[in-house]
Amino acid sequence: MKEQLTIVKVGGKIVEEPASLQQLLHDFSLIKGHKLLVHGGGRSATAIASKLGIESRMVNGRRITDEATLEVVTMVYGGLVNKKIVAGLQALNLNAMGLTGADLDYMRSEKRPVAEVDYGFVGDVKQVNATILADLIARDVVPVLAPLTHDGKGNMLNTNADTIAGEAAKALAAHFEVTLMFCFEKKGVLKDENDDESVIPLLLPADFTNYVASGVIQGGMIPKLENAFAALQQGVAKVVITRADLIHTPGGTVVLPYY
Amino acid sequence: MKEQLTIVKVGGKIVEEPASLQQLLHDFSLIKGHKLLVHGGGRSATAIASKLGIESRMVNGRRITDEATLEVVTMVYGGLVNKKIVAGLQALNLNAMGLTGADLDYMRSEKRPVAEVDYGFVGDVKQVNATILADLIARDVVPVLAPLTHDGKGNMLNTNADTIAGEAAKALAAHFEVTLMFCFEKKGVLKDENDDESVIPLLLPADFTNYVASGVIQGGMIPKLENAFAALQQGVAKVVITRADLIHTPGGTVVLPYY
Repeated sequence: MKEQLTIVKVGGKIVEEPASLQQLLHDFSLIKGHKLLVHGGGRSATAIASKLGIESRMVNGRRITDEATLEVVTMVYGGLVNKKIVAGLQALNLNAMGLTGADLDYMRSEKRPVAEVDYGFVGDVKQVNATILADLIARDVVPVLAPLTHDGKGNMLNTNADTIAGEAAKALAAHFEVTLMFCFEKKGVLKDENDDESVIPLLLPADFTNYVASGVIQGGMIPKLENAFAALQQGVAKVVITRADLIHTPGGTVVLPYY
Repeated sequence: MKEQLTIVKVGGKIVEEPASLQQLLHDFSLIKGHKLLVHGGGRSATAIASKLGIESRMVNGRRITDEATLEVVTMVYGGLVNKKIVAGLQALNLNAMGLTGADLDYMRSEKRPVAEVDYGFVGDVKQVNATILADLIARDVVPVLAPLTHDGKGNMLNTNADTIAGEAAKALAAHFEVTLMFCFEKKGVLKDENDDESVIPLLLPADFTNYVASGVIQGGMIPKLENAFAALQQGVAKVVITRADLIHTPGGTVVLPYY
């Protein structure tokens, strides 16, 4: 039987404020079995870019990454935010290790082709090499993944943290029984965006199709759930969408490939 | 018989200019056997601090690291410079992995006590845990060490790259036959600072004492060589001090514990 691995993805806001970061790291450290954390850092990137006189431009919630912005996100995601988390987890006696996709060549991507939008130095994931990562996890190392990949030609690329979490989950599903938790500011996927308590407890592929068609699920939740279903189709056992402070509370939206 | 491990420490200037970085990574990749790279990044840190309106203050060649500066060096050393090197080595088919002391808890330090100078968030190394690092090196992973450590309480600390190289060399000497190369802008330790060809080819402890007493060796070279002799006393096989573009050229200053 495979050992359990819980992959938690948290957005920037939670890891960028000292109090919520401490709470998150504490809660995360209490997860039983092997664990892995994927983080964002967009607010810090925007703040530091602004101080450096670099304008942040977003299209469909994604950052347009020109060369100067790539340097900022490499610094902020791979350095500032990642090391704050790693040092914080070490203080809780978890043997954390920060990685970008370039480290151990664990995640390669290709620069996104220019279509309607030129996102710049943004990478679409092409290859995940999880063998060494899996061996480290089996030795109780806790990987902390920054939302950055590389192209194998010497360039870092900016990559969405949800995508990183989904791709890592799929690749690690060959080695572990993987639960993937996406944490965001709501208690789960909502039926009514104006009612924070209207959490959809269970979501199956047919439900998703219907909810998207009827407009109940929209915006940034659509790619998040597409990631979730893709992960489930490739061996991930369970996806949970919940609020970061509720990872030990039953609830949230459980996404399953079938019932 | 132990396998060979070559540890190369390069200063900031070499890794911060694209042309010299490419040459260095190419030369480094041709080193036979296992290898590990330790880098600086001071010039980039100063440049980015300046853009962020943070003044860089140096005392005895060491950076005074207040809280804002600590954030800058964490970003720049741990993110920007480290990932540029890691991605560059991956492009040369070396399986590089970037680390600060917090990653894998491989190097712990304590905040330096305030004496004549308050260096701020600067760490003196107290403990090196090299077991997992050694296992990764045995699997042909190439660690790339940024000049940062952690205190085990959640804080990163700024730590001199020469010190990191020396401490890593000592700890890894239990696992490998270690050669430690300090690269800087001269061809080696010079007898006459105005004559770049006056390299001292071999340096033994007694020579060092004499050269310091007579003022031939002075300034930043003294702690560098003290690091070298300390490493040799703790199992490192050989220390070489040379210019970065000459790592494959016989020469430089070879430092040995005895002849």
